[in-house]
Amino acid sequence: MQETERISEAVIRRLPRYYRYLTQLEANNEERISSSKMSKDIALNASQIRRDLNCFGGFGQQGYGYSVSKLKSEIERILGLDRSYNVVIIGGGNMGQALVKYHKNAKKGFNVLMIFETDEKMVGTKVAGTEVMHLHDITMFCEKNQVDIGVICTPKESAQEIADVLVGAGIKGIWNFAPATVLVREGIAVENIHLNDSLYVLGYKLSQDEDAENFL
Amino acid sequence: MQETERISEAVIRRLPRYYRYLTQLEANNEERISSSKMSKDIALNASQIRRDLNCFGGFGQQGYGYSVSKLKSEIERILGLDRSYNVVIIGGGNMGQALVKYHKNAKKGFNVLMIFETDEKMVGTKVAGTEVMHLHDITMFCEKNQVDIGVICTPKESAQEIADVLVGAGIKGIWNFAPATVLVREGIAVENIHLNDSLYVLGYKLSQDEDAENFL
Repeated sequence: MQETERISEAVIRRLPRYYRYLTQLEANNEERISSSKMSKDIALNASQIRRDLNCFGGFGQQGYGYSVSKLKSEIERILGLDRSYNVVIIGGGNMGQALVKYHKNAKKGFNVLMIFETDEKMVGTKVAGTEVMHLHDITMFCEKNQVDIGVICTPKESAQEIADVLVGAGIKGIWNFAPATVLVREGIAVENIHLNDSLYVLGYKLSQDEDAENFL
Repeated sequence: MQETERISEAVIRRLPRYYRYLTQLEANNEERISSSKMSKDIALNASQIRRDLNCFGGFGQQGYGYSVSKLKSEIERILGLDRSYNVVIIGGGNMGQALVKYHKNAKKGFNVLMIFETDEKMVGTKVAGTEVMHLHDITMFCEKNQVDIGVICTPKESAQEIADVLVGAGIKGIWNFAPATVLVREGIAVENIHLNDSLYVLGYKLSQDEDAENFL
């Protein structure tokens, strides 16, 4: 790999946003895009966008803009979307099931191999076409199938324990939907999803509007 | 309201993170917290934290830190968590059901009044204790019950249409889980949830590790 330094986490977190936007442009057969147009459409500062894209040698040219397809495939490469990942889901409740279905429709790269459950009634059945196995067998399964990512959809009380099991089974990435922050040792990547964070932001915006109305 | 200027969106988006952290500290009976300790624990730059908290008149004192409870209640007030919101969920599938259950366990402030569905088999039943009504009746219901927030858990094809119906019914905030960006007129707050964004970040981290291993 040629890159001499890692790209900062803040930049990485903005890349999926660029990626979604470029995917949309491509679907609309747009070939080029300027940072100023991009800035308007995705509500980021144009100079911020240029700095971000420069980080990984963006292809922008003054007065000409970026090539949509080149930029998109470069971001795909950086995000690792040109690879594929083996995924297991722990917890076959509503959230687990929603994610299985979500990924059936999603493009590529993330293959849900198995759902793990402790509920004996679910073990041996299928959820949206994906088999359900008992949690007892997770370590064996992960080792045999080179699982990359474990998705935790259990109640919050079990989240840390499951994370420890996953790490023990050699999994390198955890996507945690349980409403509890999960801690792991260095070298393991975790994304803790805090759904309520965005709900709180929504609450903020609503309360601002109310204040504005009261003021009028 | 005394505030002379609105707080920037970037700061607002960090507040839920502070809020979660402070809630944790309070549960551990911690009374004071310094920006440097905070910085270590939540992986944000200490000067960034001080700047953020200054935006709304944080209570920090040199060498003494912030009062956990004061800071927490100030953030609650700013986020509007000291108010309560009437919420309806559109789409009673797995994601909708997961969110109903999620909010049953959540503290306060967001009251799920009703689930709306087009599936006749679900209409009239209850999901996790919450009634299911036909989508036909949503406008009448929202007007009668002063609904603040509509949560879209439908397939992406219907998301924009539902958003338009919600806005027509006087709803001021939309929490959108359909994998399609929903557009609304000014004055309506929308949070589009893109679950895959964080999965892509996870993919990035995993692919970086692989590169590092190959390099060794």
